[in-house]
Parts: sequence; C-alpha cells; structure tokens
Amino acid sequence: MEPLRLHPDRYFDPDPTVRRIARELYEEMRTFPLVCPHGHVDPAILATNEPFPEPTSLIIKPDHYIFRLLYSQGIPLEALGIPRRDGQPVETDPRKIWQIFAEHYYLFAGTPTGAWLDYEFAEVFEVPYKLDGESAQYVYDHILERLQSPEYRPRALFERFNIEILTTTDAATDTLEHHQAIRASGWPGRVAPCFRPDAVFKIARPDWHEHLQLLEQRCGFSIRSYEDFIRALENRRAFFKEMGAFATDHAVLVPRTHRLAPEQAEALFQKALRGEATEADQADFEAHLLMEMARMSLEDGLVMQIHAGAFYNHNTYIYERFGPDKGGDIPVQAEFTYNLRELLVTYGNDPRLTVIVFTLDESTYSRELAPLAGHYPALKIGPAWWFHDSIEGIMRYREWITETASIYNTAGFNDDTRAFCSIPARHDLARRIDANYLARLVARHIIDMSDARRMARAMAYDLVRKTYRIDQFIPAAA
Amino acid sequence: MEPLRLHPDRYFDPDPTVRRIARELYEEMRTFPLVCPHGHVDPAILATNEPFPEPTSLIIKPDHYIFRLLYSQGIPLEALGIPRRDGQPVETDPRKIWQIFAEHYYLFAGTPTGAWLDYEFAEVFEVPYKLDGESAQYVYDHILERLQSPEYRPRALFERFNIEILTTTDAATDTLEHHQAIRASGWPGRVAPCFRPDAVFKIARPDWHEHLQLLEQRCGFSIRSYEDFIRALENRRAFFKEMGAFATDHAVLVPRTHRLAPEQAEALFQKALRGEATEADQADFEAHLLMEMARMSLEDGLVMQIHAGAFYNHNTYIYERFGPDKGGDIPVQAEFTYNLRELLVTYGNDPRLTVIVFTLDESTYSRELAPLAGHYPALKIGPAWWFHDSIEGIMRYREWITETASIYNTAGFNDDTRAFCSIPARHDLARRIDANYLARLVARHIIDMSDARRMARAMAYDLVRKTYRIDQFIPAAA
Amino acid sequence: MEPLRLHPDRYFDPDPTVRRIARELYEEMRTFPLVCPHGHVDPAILATNEPFPEPTSLIIKPDHYIFRLLYSQGIPLEALGIPRRDGQPVETDPRKIWQIFAEHYYLFAGTPTGAWLDYEFAEVFEVPYKLDGESAQYVYDHILERLQSPEYRPRALFERFNIEILTTTDAATDTLEHHQAIRASGWPGRVAPCFRPDAVFKIARPDWHEHLQLLEQRCGFSIRSYEDFIRALENRRAFFKEMGAFATDHAVLVPRTHRLAPEQAEALFQKALRGEATEADQADFEAHLLMEMARMSLEDGLVMQIHAGAFYNHNTYIYERFGPDKGGDIPVQAEFTYNLRELLVTYGNDPRLTVIVFTLDESTYSRELAPLAGHYPALKIGPAWWFHDSIEGIMRYREWITETASIYNTAGFNDDTRAFCSIPARHDLARRIDANYLARLVARHIIDMSDARRMARAMAYDLVRKTYRIDQFIPAAA
Repeated sequence: MEPLRLHPDRYFDPDPTVRRIARELYEEMRTFPLVCPHGHVDPAILATNEPFPEPTSLIIKPDHYIFRLLYSQGIPLEALGIPRRDGQPVETDPRKIWQIFAEHYYLFAGTPTGAWLDYEFAEVFEVPYKLDGESAQYVYDHILERLQSPEYRPRALFERFNIEILTTTDAATDTLEHHQAIRASGWPGRVAPCFRPDAVFKIARPDWHEHLQLLEQRCGFSIRSYEDFIRALENRRAFFKEMGAFATDHAVLVPRTHRLAPEQAEALFQKALRGEATEADQADFEAHLLMEMARMSLEDGLVMQIHAGAFYNHNTYIYERFGPDKGGDIPVQAEFTYNLRELLVTYGNDPRLTVIVFTLDESTYSRELAPLAGHYPALKIGPAWWFHDSIEGIMRYREWITETASIYNTAGFNDDTRAFCSIPARHDLARRIDANYLARLVARHIIDMSDARRMARAMAYDLVRKTYRIDQFIPAAA
Repeated sequence: MEPLRLHPDRYFDPDPTVRRIARELYEEMRTFPLVCPHGHVDPAILATNEPFPEPTSLIIKPDHYIFRLLYSQGIPLEALGIPRRDGQPVETDPRKIWQIFAEHYYLFAGTPTGAWLDYEFAEVFEVPYKLDGESAQYVYDHILERLQSPEYRPRALFERFNIEILTTTDAATDTLEHHQAIRASGWPGRVAPCFRPDAVFKIARPDWHEHLQLLEQRCGFSIRSYEDFIRALENRRAFFKEMGAFATDHAVLVPRTHRLAPEQAEALFQKALRGEATEADQADFEAHLLMEMARMSLEDGLVMQIHAGAFYNHNTYIYERFGPDKGGDIPVQAEFTYNLRELLVTYGNDPRLTVIVFTLDESTYSRELAPLAGHYPALKIGPAWWFHDSIEGIMRYREWITETASIYNTAGFNDDTRAFCSIPARHDLARRIDANYLARLVARHIIDMSDARRMARAMAYDLVRKTYRIDQFIPAAA
Repeated sequence: MEPLRLHPDRYFDPDPTVRRIARELYEEMRTFPLVCPHGHVDPAILATNEPFPEPTSLIIKPDHYIFRLLYSQGIPLEALGIPRRDGQPVETDPRKIWQIFAEHYYLFAGTPTGAWLDYEFAEVFEVPYKLDGESAQYVYDHILERLQSPEYRPRALFERFNIEILTTTDAATDTLEHHQAIRASGWPGRVAPCFRPDAVFKIARPDWHEHLQLLEQRCGFSIRSYEDFIRALENRRAFFKEMGAFATDHAVLVPRTHRLAPEQAEALFQKALRGEATEADQADFEAHLLMEMARMSLEDGLVMQIHAGAFYNHNTYIYERFGPDKGGDIPVQAEFTYNLRELLVTYGNDPRLTVIVFTLDESTYSRELAPLAGHYPALKIGPAWWFHDSIEGIMRYREWITETASIYNTAGFNDDTRAFCSIPARHDLARRIDANYLARLVARHIIDMSDARRMARAMAYDLVRKTYRIDQFIPAAA
C-alpha cells in the first residue's frame, strides 16, 4: 500500500519565487476561521449531533461529484447503492460499494474531488495509505473507527474545522426546526438558514400546488392572489431573518429580470392556480420575482444570490429512476448583460443592496460579469461555482475577473457543499490557489507584498464577511 | 544558412522541476505505437506504394493549413499552384512555389503547422537547415532526393513511423477498393476505413441525388423510400465493418439530435427525392439521422464520431474558383447541452455505445462537454480539434476539461491529417504537451508520479484504443 | 509613506530563463517610437499646448476606468466631481476628490489601471511614494508642481514620449479645426484624425437629425436622398484624408454586414428623414453601411476599423444623470463568422483592403477571429481591446490567436486612450507582455531567438505601421 501524504506546498507553482511567496501568504490565510455563507449541509446533522454513519453512506452515497464520474465510466448507480425510486433492489453492502469506489479512485486524479478526498482522508481522518483496490478495506475500517469516537461527532468537527458560521439552504416552506433545535441546545456554533424559494416560483411544475399549500400552512393564511403570494414571501423572509438568515438564493436557468405590471403578475398567478401555467409563463414569473426579491432585499437587507445557468436533471433517464441530484445537471450558455439589466438599472445603483451572481459559463467572467461588477455598486461576483471550484478553475476565475472587476468586487469563497467533512478541504484548496494567484502577481512585480497581504486577507476572510454582511453580527477575527 | 535542430525538451515548461518530470513521462510515452483512428490520408498512397511526388506537391499543395496562411498574407492561390476549377493557368513550377513558401516560412513561427513542419523536415527528411528564402532550393533538393529512395516509400514510412493502425475517412458510397487492394497485397500494415455518410444526409444540396444514385449502385437496390434509405445505410455500415471499419463519422454545423416520427422522416425523404428539400428540412433530417446512427451503433458496435461547428466553404469567392478544402472553413458557436440531449437521454446511458464529440468552440469544453462526458457513460470528448490541435490548444483542452470530466472520459489523440508525412510530428507534439500537462500536476503535488505514469500511458495509448475499441482486435503493446 | 518603484523586470515571468529572454527582447522593443493609430485624445490639447490642469482634473475626472471602480464600491460620482447633467452641485474641491481616490487606490491592485497609474506616477511625474491615504496630498502637490513646468506641456510630453504619430477619433461632422491649427503651427508632431461616422449612421436615435444637419453644413449641400448621404460621406472621407486621416472607425453592437438593394437603402433613409426609423431599421442600415464603408475603403485606401460588441450606456440611471462614458458600457456576446461573411466574401479577398476587427468577447479569439484572419487577406485582428488591454488579457490574446492566425495577421498595438499621460504606460505594458509571450515560446524551444527578434520588432512597431499603412508616409525607425 502506498503512503498518503499531502505535500505542504501542494497546488503552488513549482517556480521557487512564486512558491516561497505563496507559502508565506497562505500561512496567514490558513489562520482565519472558515466562513460558509452558502452550502447544502443538512442542519439535522448538527441539531442531533449523532455520529456520522459508516464511510460509504457518509462519503459516497450523498456525493454526486463522486458517483457522477463512476457512472460515466459505466458503473451502474445500483452498484453504488443509490436508491431507486421504484424500490428495486440496489447494492446494500457498504464494503462492496467502497471497494468499487477504491478500485476506480484513479479516475479522480487531477480533479478537485480527488484533491478534496485526499485532504479529507489525510487531514480529517488521518488515513495513512492512498486509496486503491488494495487498501480499500483497510481505509474503510480506519475511517469507521474514527467515526465512532466523540471527536468525530458533527459539532466536534465543526469546532475543529474552525467554522465561524455555516449556512444551510432551505425551502421557503421549511419549518427551520433543526435550526430552532440548534439554537435551543445552547451549543454556541453558528448555523444560519438561507431563504431559497425556488419551488414556489416554478409555477409550471406539477408539484407547485403542493409547495403553495405548504406555504399557506407556514404562513397561516390562504394564498388566493398574487398579492397574498407576495405577502407570504415577505412573511417567510421575515421569519428566516429572525432565525438568523442573512441571504436568499435563487436558481434560474436564464437570469432574466423584468418587472410585470401588477395585473400581468396577477393574471399569471391565477393561471398558475388553475394549473395552466406554461414554461414560458414560469420564465416570465421568475423574471418578475427576481425584481421583487431585489426590492424586498433593499427593504429587509437580505443579500440576494442568483445561481444561473444549470440545466437540472438533464438526464431524464436517471431522473426518473433515481430522482434529482444524481450528477445529471449540465450547464448551458449564460447571458447577463441583457438579462440582469432591468434589475441592475432599477436597484443596482443602491449600495445598500447586494446581489451576488454565480455562473457556470466561464466565458461570461471577463465578458460580462467583471465589467458589470466593476461598475454597479450592488453587484458582486460569486466565487467559482460547482464544476469550476477547482485548482485550474479558481485560477481562471481570478485571472479572467480581477483585471476588470478588481478582487474587491468578488464575494470571497463559498464551499457550496453537502459533504460536511469536505468543508475544510475546499477552503484549504481555494485559499492555496488564491495565495498562488497573488504570489504570481508579486513575483511579476504587478503588486508588492503589502498589497498582497491585504488582498490575501480579503480573499480568505474579509470579503466574504463584508459581502454577506456577516461583520454586522459576528466580530472579525484578528 | 541557419542549422535546423529540434531541441529534445521542446514544448516543455522551462521550470526545471516540470521539465525533468515531463521528460521522464515523455520518454515512456514516445515508445508507444501511433494509433490513428481518425484522419484523411488517401488510402491509394498505401495501396499503390508509389514514391511520393516532389516536395511542393507533397507538402504545400494538399495542405490548406499551409496555403491558408500564405493566402491571408496576400499571396494568390494561383501563385501556389492550386488548380482552378475553370482551368485557368496557375503556377506550375514547383521550385518557384517552394521559394515563395520558404520566403514566407517565418509566418508559421509559433503555429502548430510550423512545429509540425520543423519536425517533418528535421526528423522525417533530415534536412540540416532552417527553411527560408536562402535555403529554399537546397532544402527542396534534399527532400526530393530522399523521396526517391525506397526508405521513403509510403509503406516504409508507415513502418518507420510505428503506426499501429491508420484510419481513413470514406464516403458511404466509397467502394473501398484501395482498402481491398491493401488487404489483398499481403502487406501487414493495418489500414481501416471509416464510414462518413455526410453526403447522403445533406438532402438540400444540389448534388444529393448524385450521391443517392451512387448509394443505390453500391447497395444494388433502388432507394425509393425512407425505409430503403435506412436499409441502404445499414447495408453499407455492414460492408464497412467487414472491411475493418470500427467507427463512423458525422460532420454537422449544429449537433442537434431529434427523432422524427416515421411518417415525418418519410415525408422529408420524399420531399428530398422531389428535389424540394430546404436547408431547414436538411437540418431536421440530420438531427433525426444522428439518432438513427446512434441506434445502429448500439446494434453494430461502430463507434460514433460527431464533428460539430465548422462552417465549411465560408469564402464562396474561393470556393467557386478553387473548390472545397481551401482554408475557408470557419468555426461557429457550438451548443451541446440542449442539442445532444435527446440522443444522450435515449442512448447515452448504455455503456455499449460510444459517442465521441469534437468541438471547435473551446468555450464548450468546461461549460458543456466536460460536464456531459463526466456523467453520460456513452459520451467521450474527442481530442483538441483542428485549429486547437496545437501547443497552447492542447494545454487549454487538458486544463479546461480534466477537472470536470477526468482524463478518462477523453478519447486519446487523433492526428486528423491528410498529410501522411506529418503524422509522427503531430503525435509527438500531442504527447509532449500531455507529458508537460501531467508534469505540471506532479510538480504542484496534485498527483504523484505513479498517478502520472498511469495517466501518461492512458493519454498516449490506452484511451484511444479503448475508446475506439481497438483493443478488441489488436493486442496492446507492452 | 512607502516608496514607489517600478521593477525593471515587471510583468515578466519569474522563471529565470523566460525572464532573461523577455528582458533581452524588451530592451529592443522599448527603443521604437510609439505608434498610436487609434485613440481618444482631444486634439485641442496639442493645438493649444496649454499646461494641463491640476491632477484631479487631469487624471481622475476624465477617466471612466478609474471612477467606474470607485463607483462600484459605493462612492457616488458626485463625490468624485463628475458633473451632473441637471447642474446639481457636485464636489468641487480637487484635493478632497484626490484624497478619496488615494484612499481607495488599493482597489486597483492587479488591474491594468493600477499598472498604468503606477507608471504614470513613477515615470512621467517622478512621484517618489506609493499613492495611499497618507501620501495623497504630497503626491497631489508633487504632480501639480510638475504640471506647471514647461517640460510638462502637452507637446513637450509628446516628444518625450517619443510618439511617432497620434491619431484622434473624430465625428464625420467634425471641422478638424484643432488638426488644422496643429498643422498651421509648424510644430512637427504628427497628429492625424480618424473618420468615425457612427452618429450619422444611428438613424433611430433622437439626435440623428441634428447630426445630419451638421453633416449638410459641413458638406455644403443638402442631404435629401440616400444618394446625397453617400456623397456626403465620400466628401467627408476625402476631407479627412486630406487632413491626414488614414483610417475610419465604426462602433457597432452587432457586426452584421449586408448590402441592401439601392431602393431598400433609399426607403430606409426616407423613413429616417421622417423620424420613423426603428432600432431594427437602424441595424439594417448599419449592416448596409459597413458594406459601403468597405467599398469606399477599397477606393480611397482608408483602413477600416470595426469595434463590435459594446452595449453603451447600459446603466440608464447613470446615463440620465451624468451622460455617456461613465463606466456603464458593458460587453455582450459577439458573433463574427456569420455577421462578417458578406463583407469578407465581397471585399475581403482583395489585399488592397484592410479591415481591423476588435472584440470584447474573448471566446471569439480562437473560435472565429483567428480562423477568419488566418484566411481572408483583408482581415486583421485588432489588439486586445478595452477591458482586455491588460497583463493577463494580452497574454490570452496572444495565446489564443497566434497559433491559428500567426502574429502577422494581428494589427500591432493601440493605446485607445483619452488619457494622454497614460500613453507611454500602455505601450510599455503591452511591449512587456509581448516580450514575455515570445520569451515563453523561446524558452520552450517553439521558436528560436532569431524568430523572436523578428517577431518582437513586428509586434512593437512593424505590424502597426504596415496594417495602418503608416509606412506609406512615415519612414521606419532603424
């Protein structure tokens, strides 16, 4: 079995000048707490603080980054224990699944998932050997043992990871009971919800009525008009804010923004109530609701996030058999200059508003997002998202954006993960790439070390706190 | 005259760490035979094994990479001896043409054509001097002399180049007589045809009927219905397969895939027979036929290649005077997420199918192709194509794709050339860039040397054999 | 206060091999005069040769690169002294504005504006300290003092900057009186106008009639028909040429080219005269006029420039309050393969024509512009434009274009600035990046030093002179 070792200079350029500077900057960056303003961790984990399950259920089954690639190489999802919607049997032996994973672990060489997993194995679980077919069961046992100790309970890891605040992503109709439980528990870890009302915006979807009914229940009033609907959203935003939320989040295929006349909005809503809304109606309604969300954000101070350009559940074959989040979400071309214009002209000149935009279309970095964020006070560019949250991806993000928007119009880092144990790995990777990016600038005498130190701190800590307005309620680390 | 020397570390990063690792990886990669599953060499060359013509006819006249750039600098194609369709006189003195080429050879500095030609001159023809106006006639004589020796006959070069298999590109209506002749000759070199039925799919083109008639002749039955047409295609695929073909190839402007109802397909076909098919009809028919090709590939096991996004014969001025393949083919924006969806959802979950997609729009690498190939078992990404088959182009290809799709969902290398003598140059360049790419990963401790060695072998040899299913009939080199 | 020092090796890669070669190439490149064939300097500056105003009016107020970024960080334009259209008061104390700028100067770290300003401060004004809140007033005083000395008069700087020729950008209706005055003054500096008729092409704009009337005045005949209009344009081109112009310039959102039938053009023009032209009419008219401009260029030899893809005045909120050129110009996706086709097929095969295309959509570099320029004799690619005229931007430009188009189909450098004192900074930065680009090629043995020297000279001097046909009237420097 080959030893697993993380090199202390990993991800830094081999050039000795760059490496020396990167190391120096990184040594400062690593000391900051992790700020996690956007992610998908299940708050129940921290509410109950139960031990994590065995390695396969913890690491493989919930992570579509992992099984996506295994599936692409011809391994059926059934063999990985992914449950089928129709209840047909799938593999249940976690060790068998782990063995398949380990035998195909070479596929992840050069991918961010591989880098994160190596960190998770080496740093979080102190696994001594590289994962492969030979070491598979040894590694499984090793992690299993760790998971049973109190130091590997979720709250203990939260503290060990040095998380300053962790944000979940919650439907508008969520009761936030786990957040309530965490608060009530007296545990001092900060866990905040985030208001993501997508499901009640998608008026053409078959399950829209269901979500609407739930919304009525949560609000305690019936929603018969567009006005009721807006009132319900405002009501829920207020509840989320009370529960510690500082941001909203909106996933859209096309980030179009356009305010409808009140009677148009009402007509669309009535059409939706009758179950007659089309895809085009939904697109209009969403474009309008993004305007409404910006308006409400100006009023209640919640930071607005827009994640644009993912075609969810592209592979209907898989979706029908296994449901959503199974690796079948594929980016499409994005356009922001025309699409965001109405929102930006209307609300974007007001620095009290913050709108953070995320893209999966890297060609928009230098063409659209950097010029927009380098001008409109409200607009900030979210970190390299999803497929691009990687070594080369973050470097492209920095190199393509900074010259036009400056680093100060970017929003710091988001780990955006549902894999709790991968959080420190993701921050570590991003901080290293940012350190290396700055080191490349210093080594070329584009900036000097005093600029670089200020920027390093901003990228690791200050910008995310400022952009998400976290400085308003958590004092900064030294 | 300046000496011509290829540096042994050419194309590797100057950083000593990267260079040392790249060299080590390359030394292994260079030992593998050349696998050429897609290209445009005329099989007659190998069937007859006649000596190649003099240097101008061998190197300049057939290579639109070369005269494209000369033409862009104001040199008329007539001066380069490119024959006119109208029979008007063009330059016939090969030495004059060679002199013009040599005097403008500086234009190719920093282009892949320049890199390939330097290799061809230095390694294949052992030319001792850099080509320029002064050395022009010397170099001409030198190459001419070599071409007359038996070591420079096509089959001798094929063996010296260490080609494991060479694939040509052939119309659906091709008799494959040269392939038959090669087989019959007893020469052990492997030369396979590839089924490219574009001409019989383009129902709006004036020459479609001609191609259809030829298809009827080849099949020996008349094609009066869509059903006949499909039968004819199946018939030809079977013949190609019998003749050693393992793949099909499809050039489309837009890679749309959509199955028509049988009666719609029949109606379009009848319209085409009446000579009334429009461009839009053709687009629908092609979208449908891509679905049919995938279905047939599932049945007969031929690997399906899609080359999308080239606007052929953009320059009608040149096309009218000189015909196709004169440098006037220009890429357009490509879109795969929506366009390939129907094909992928319908057939792409079956690992028995392989669909290799090539793009000229590099913005689709990280945005669409890598996410798609990192999920659908049938989809693989073809190597950096045409304009992008270059030092920086291949590096972008690797850096933009690997993190999302892993190298293991790419299809190895294709030389894609009609210039037989440039084949080793192209493989050498690609292998060097891949070695350098891996060396950059190792030097940054993203992967270790044992990962890198496995990946190097995969990129140089294993992946192309596996993706094109060549391992099924040619055993692997050690 | 921290000392301000420009490192002699700034912007070069830290790798010692690359750096040594880059330095050697740059040392030659820096000796060439600055050729400035496209820019926005006000010719009145050189006609009157008055001292420049104080630092804030010279450096901040006219430069939307600067206040764009300050505005994006929430600083109102009023606080920067940008005049409002409605005459409402804005900050008038230049020292207060300078202080704000200085306190936010850290925002420009890693941006080209920061790099240019550092050069301007260090080299042009010999400022000894880095600009920040502390040094602000010191630096202000220092520059103010310099500006009052005769060595800082515009013509003295022009000579010190070693400008071979400076081109302004002038409306078709401009009297060119300042150009006349410069000529009449006997001062030997070369300042040429450039014919930019955009305002008279935009037939859907409310101020079109105004511009048309002005055009009538300038031509001395009334313009009642499309034919008159064309005659007027030809008349003005002749006047511009007489006044030293060697180029035209055209800003379009979409670079569509399509010749209308004469009666269609006439009908559109009459519609415009009636004040009824729509946006779509204007787009058709502009597509047609680009064809006409190419035709006229073939006749009068003026080089044609097309700047495509900027959505001007995106932020109507700012535009209404402050007018144009306030940082609210945002790129959109561009398309050239289809759009330029008619122009290129019709006129682009004639090497007597030169069309230089500029893009803000970097995805078009390798996909469309390089293939087009690597084929059509008339087409050249303008330098990295606007947001992309930066350290990383120019490097991408070279890496994405050269392999397909060769450097010899690019148009050298343009500083494209209205900030006269930043001219040497911009040329210096571009030359350094080009030197570094070539050094990377040499260090990887892609080209040798003799290739590199020829290319370095071409990139710094020869190409811009050749492409803009300046060699026809100014002999080359040694």
